[in-house]
Amino acid sequence: MPTASGHTQAIRAKKVIGTPVKDPSGKKIGEIEDVVLDKLSNNIMFAAVSFGGFLGVKEKYHPIPWSMLTYDENEDGYVVNITKEQLQAAPADTIGELTKNDGLTYRDRAFDYYRSPRYWE
Amino acid sequence: MPTASGHTQAIRAKKVIGTPVKDPSGKKIGEIEDVVLDKLSNNIMFAAVSFGGFLGVKEKYHPIPWSMLTYDENEDGYVVNITKEQLQAAPADTIGELTKNDGLTYRDRAFDYYRSPRYWE
Repeated sequence: MPTASGHTQAIRAKKVIGTPVKDPSGKKIGEIEDVVLDKLSNNIMFAAVSFGGFLGVKEKYHPIPWSMLTYDENEDGYVVNITKEQLQAAPADTIGELTKNDGLTYRDRAFDYYRSPRYWE
Repeated sequence: MPTASGHTQAIRAKKVIGTPVKDPSGKKIGEIEDVVLDKLSNNIMFAAVSFGGFLGVKEKYHPIPWSMLTYDENEDGYVVNITKEQLQAAPADTIGELTKNDGLTYRDRAFDYYRSPRYWE
């Protein structure tokens, strides 16, 4: 069962990390820095994405719900439908802060901000 | 909410990869090679674990349900309750084969073999 873009369902974390993130026009705006996993529930909490070059802010990472990242084989990257303005006001912090308090603070803030369906309810 | 071992709930894929896997006595028997993620469902499909040195078989990886890996801070690694005999008969293959057919073939075989509760039903 390939996804709509022809990508397969199973993807290795090693391959996800470092993959470019693009806007719908195909412009690279960031990169997957890491994927934060939930030790207790078998779930992916969020991806930590760096939009530093695009936003002009260094060493801050954005928690992005996994379901918002659509892999596009033609672009060889993940396409997200987020504007620069949205990202500038979005939750972002250092990796250490993103995973503090079990990652729940930033997970909840990110899912709320992007109005993503919660996987934990 | 720390886990029983004091480990936090959120864990980064980069930190999981390369972490030792030990038996309940604390002996290192393997290492986390990668984590296979489900692009469609927000779930962790399984960890790909190398038990090569322990089993004397090279370049084969075992799909292990995420819930079977218990992080033990004292051991600085994941502890699994699997015997050598169990591992020798367990599903194992190259990384490429593990993720073929959307990873479903090996995911299902592993969950069946270890009698792990299925997250997808």
